[in-house]
Amino acid sequence: MTRADWIAVDWGTSHLRAWAISASGAVLDKAASADGMGGLSQAEFEPALLRLINPWLNDQPTPVIACGMVGAKQGWVEAPYRTVPCKPGEAAPIMPATRDSRIKLHILPGVSQDSPADVMRGEETQTAGVIHENPHFDGILCLPGTHTKWIHISAEEIVSFRTAMTGELFALLSQHSVLRHSVGGQEFDRETFDVAVAETLSRPERLAQSLFTIRAEGLLHGQSNAAAKGRLSGLLIGAELAAARPYWLGQQVLIGGAPALVALYARALETQGVHCLTRDAETLTLAGLRLAHAKLTEAP
Amino acid sequence: MTRADWIAVDWGTSHLRAWAISASGAVLDKAASADGMGGLSQAEFEPALLRLINPWLNDQPTPVIACGMVGAKQGWVEAPYRTVPCKPGEAAPIMPATRDSRIKLHILPGVSQDSPADVMRGEETQTAGVIHENPHFDGILCLPGTHTKWIHISAEEIVSFRTAMTGELFALLSQHSVLRHSVGGQEFDRETFDVAVAETLSRPERLAQSLFTIRAEGLLHGQSNAAAKGRLSGLLIGAELAAARPYWLGQQVLIGGAPALVALYARALETQGVHCLTRDAETLTLAGLRLAHAKLTEAP
Repeated sequence: MTRADWIAVDWGTSHLRAWAISASGAVLDKAASADGMGGLSQAEFEPALLRLINPWLNDQPTPVIACGMVGAKQGWVEAPYRTVPCKPGEAAPIMPATRDSRIKLHILPGVSQDSPADVMRGEETQTAGVIHENPHFDGILCLPGTHTKWIHISAEEIVSFRTAMTGELFALLSQHSVLRHSVGGQEFDRETFDVAVAETLSRPERLAQSLFTIRAEGLLHGQSNAAAKGRLSGLLIGAELAAARPYWLGQQVLIGGAPALVALYARALETQGVHCLTRDAETLTLAGLRLAHAKLTEAP
Repeated sequence: MTRADWIAVDWGTSHLRAWAISASGAVLDKAASADGMGGLSQAEFEPALLRLINPWLNDQPTPVIACGMVGAKQGWVEAPYRTVPCKPGEAAPIMPATRDSRIKLHILPGVSQDSPADVMRGEETQTAGVIHENPHFDGILCLPGTHTKWIHISAEEIVSFRTAMTGELFALLSQHSVLRHSVGGQEFDRETFDVAVAETLSRPERLAQSLFTIRAEGLLHGQSNAAAKGRLSGLLIGAELAAARPYWLGQQVLIGGAPALVALYARALETQGVHCLTRDAETLTLAGLRLAHAKLTEAP
């Protein structure tokens, strides 16, 4: 049986992920469920967590370090945002009471920016992981996903950041719009992706019109689903890169996330002469949570 | 009891509308249902239509003139697109057989454009209505809706056109995205709308980022739902106007559609010095269908 020294948790709107960590910081086991914050009521948070991590608990209180929407206003307990500029690795967690005395929950706060108004919950922990691994990193951390973050890091601080809804737009258009008829299946045409990135990167104002051509190209010219999916992804990522240009132009860029998505962003930026470092999202999340755990134990 | 001389039908993806028309062209009665093409199988088309128009039928075959998605590949019968440039009022309808001999169905074809690839079904009939009422109209017909059309009319022809998915994006973002938490309710702040239109009209490349500020402004600065809804609408319409600039800059523009939406587009274009004519969508659809009926009866 696995007995965790402590437990790392990433709890977002649509997912719950946990890792059992040893005293030396090694991952002993991991588990995940679809019990995201968005689908649970207040009374269901603790049972959902215990269902996942119960096998790793013992009679002594086990520290649980959690980041993400778990600290939002509609989360388990609100962990108020810290404001940029700030060092993401120095956040003091909020410790809500739990009914089960076998866990000792620590929730990490998110980070906000006053103007332009922006917020993150979870990505600050990944950012702390990046900075911990490379304290001299001066550049941009791009975290593609449902809400892609572009984070300017300098002197171990988050200086500023911006969010683009690219992933959510892709999901909505693929699944719920008229384009759903065109983009079915798993195939993805990378050459069509490249052309579409170039199209909206150079003419981002055309996005609203370019999207409908995906439907029309299928009806009139027999465009394949693979090409349609590549075009939808490319148009949206190209438009995002146009918006984020001040964040990547002439900058050192590290992209962290799911490998397939990271590869698409790296490919798109490569066409602009930006050679990106890439990292897996889980690695970054764990690095940040390990750092938060170390801060707890070093406290007086 | 109403006995129609002929029946006008506008049958889209999500709606079915019909009008009983007298020999003199007057509207005797009208009816509508949610039996759009998108929710019906092939076998359900005729029963859905008959449910709506049955009270207006008599023993003699009544002509039914229909436009919209009823003529799409997945519609009742495919009415192949005519290609621009073309005179929208001169389309020859397709006449599918019906089981009920009391109706004589005529389905009007849509219009396509090869490059940039684009299609319309239904809007060509509204365009025919505009041209019939004003044969000298030389300018732009803007038909805002789920898929907004910008149509260049000259010498009684559709010269070119473009579609923007603005209405569908607004619906998806309002109802299914993280922004749904911010835009609830019926209130709509017109001043925030104006500011948002100006934002994406001048900097359309920022759209992907600007959308998320709607969420963040609510969380951080207590932005009202009315302001959030005005901002979402304004950002999307501003970005569309940026894309459609060649269609309205220095042009005569007529906007046709639902009155509240027409007013928003007219307000946005007014800020750019474009004073638009406006028309109700139903008036245009009926004008186009009346024209198609007249063509039938004048045929040799």
